[in-house]
Amino acid sequence: MNAITDLGSRTGLAERLRIRSGAFAGQTSGLAPGNVQANLAILPAALAGDFLRFAHANPKPCPVLAVAEPGNPHIPAIGRDLDIRTDIPRYRVWRHGELVEECTDISHLWRDDLVSFPIGCSFSFEEALIEDGIEVRHIACGSNVPMYRTNIACTPAGIFRGPMVVSMRPMSPRDAIRAVQITSRFPSVHGAPVHIGLPGLLGIKDLDKPDYGDPVPIGANELPVFWACGVTPQAVIAETKPELCITHAPGCMLITDLRNSNLAAL
Amino acid sequence: MNAITDLGSRTGLAERLRIRSGAFAGQTSGLAPGNVQANLAILPAALAGDFLRFAHANPKPCPVLAVAEPGNPHIPAIGRDLDIRTDIPRYRVWRHGELVEECTDISHLWRDDLVSFPIGCSFSFEEALIEDGIEVRHIACGSNVPMYRTNIACTPAGIFRGPMVVSMRPMSPRDAIRAVQITSRFPSVHGAPVHIGLPGLLGIKDLDKPDYGDPVPIGANELPVFWACGVTPQAVIAETKPELCITHAPGCMLITDLRNSNLAAL
Repeated sequence: MNAITDLGSRTGLAERLRIRSGAFAGQTSGLAPGNVQANLAILPAALAGDFLRFAHANPKPCPVLAVAEPGNPHIPAIGRDLDIRTDIPRYRVWRHGELVEECTDISHLWRDDLVSFPIGCSFSFEEALIEDGIEVRHIACGSNVPMYRTNIACTPAGIFRGPMVVSMRPMSPRDAIRAVQITSRFPSVHGAPVHIGLPGLLGIKDLDKPDYGDPVPIGANELPVFWACGVTPQAVIAETKPELCITHAPGCMLITDLRNSNLAAL
Repeated sequence: MNAITDLGSRTGLAERLRIRSGAFAGQTSGLAPGNVQANLAILPAALAGDFLRFAHANPKPCPVLAVAEPGNPHIPAIGRDLDIRTDIPRYRVWRHGELVEECTDISHLWRDDLVSFPIGCSFSFEEALIEDGIEVRHIACGSNVPMYRTNIACTPAGIFRGPMVVSMRPMSPRDAIRAVQITSRFPSVHGAPVHIGLPGLLGIKDLDKPDYGDPVPIGANELPVFWACGVTPQAVIAETKPELCITHAPGCMLITDLRNSNLAAL
């Protein structure tokens, strides 16, 4: 383990312990810089197989970083001493598609058949974009990324089906080309854009009215660039209405020990 | 040397010998499939240093594949038994920026101070696009690629200066993203696009009126994708008016023994 990885690991664990203690229950953007942060979906084992098949068939919107053992709240492959029941600042509990509870600890809900899916998040590739000198508009604006439901249907599996959700970042054509190169290196966190420039082709009528998140200004010399979005599995789960599903609350991600740079395929 | 490289070598040499014999004096598109074809510029040694500096500063429009020894018509690094005086189907001879002669052999013009520059050509990356299933419009139309002078100034070096010329290929947004990935692998043959989608930013007023080549149809669901073009050095040389410059005639390229696949950086 080299110095940087070790630094990352300790930072990730330190943040998880701080969250576990109850000392922090906010959004995780900016915490443990360089560490991979993950979306979370927890499902009963009876549905987990279909969900994993769904993810496998739709790797761009649903890039699964790891799959926990049924009933095991620990995922040592992505975090030392990680406890999925306590280490996320804020959870959302869904029953039959309805949001029934928001809480900072799910120990009272834990069951022997629950399977946790940490899923890649755009924070990882946004860090790579910013390090390359590319402005990420919603970060510059201090707002949430604008997201849109599209007319692209995910490949269904079992009960899981629904449209792909995309996130949008406006960029100059030059930055858009560079962003394709950079994000192509990160297939496990959504990878290359799925679309550039013609939102009508995705069924998006008005970029100023995102389905999730906040609108951002787009310059006359810019193109909207669209990536498959980790909200897709949450939207699909909401539509599919499983008896129980637990997710992170928006922006309150799972901080792992993985390093963003280690996700680069090239 | 493996079987494929050997096949390529023999095919390249066979085509060069056929051209040298005078049996073929046409356009080289489609000859020796898989072999790298090159643009050609030949300059007196007194200007060659500045030209190489110019190319080094502008690698996207002017990717030099090899530099011959002054006065040596052979370039063994890119072709067995290659003779730059005879192995191109048709040459153009420029004196002080004026086209003074078109011929199929330049032996009568050869001098001890001439330096040959084979320069990468879009044929190489177009082959990779087509192999990936992407339509290259001007090839589908059986016409020349449309090319445009832009408002992007090349970095000057010595007497060499001028605007970047770009070629344009219309594509669906999905194919445009894939084309960025594919052509990024080929930095020695123009590499990734320099622009997508907003030709006005390049100073291009009407895509239907290219400065060189032929216009191609662009669908409503397509974006124009622009690559730095090997016509740039020729346009720069024409503008710079050196006492002597010899180039290939349009479409009549130098067939090398290099394999397109061997140019891939990844």
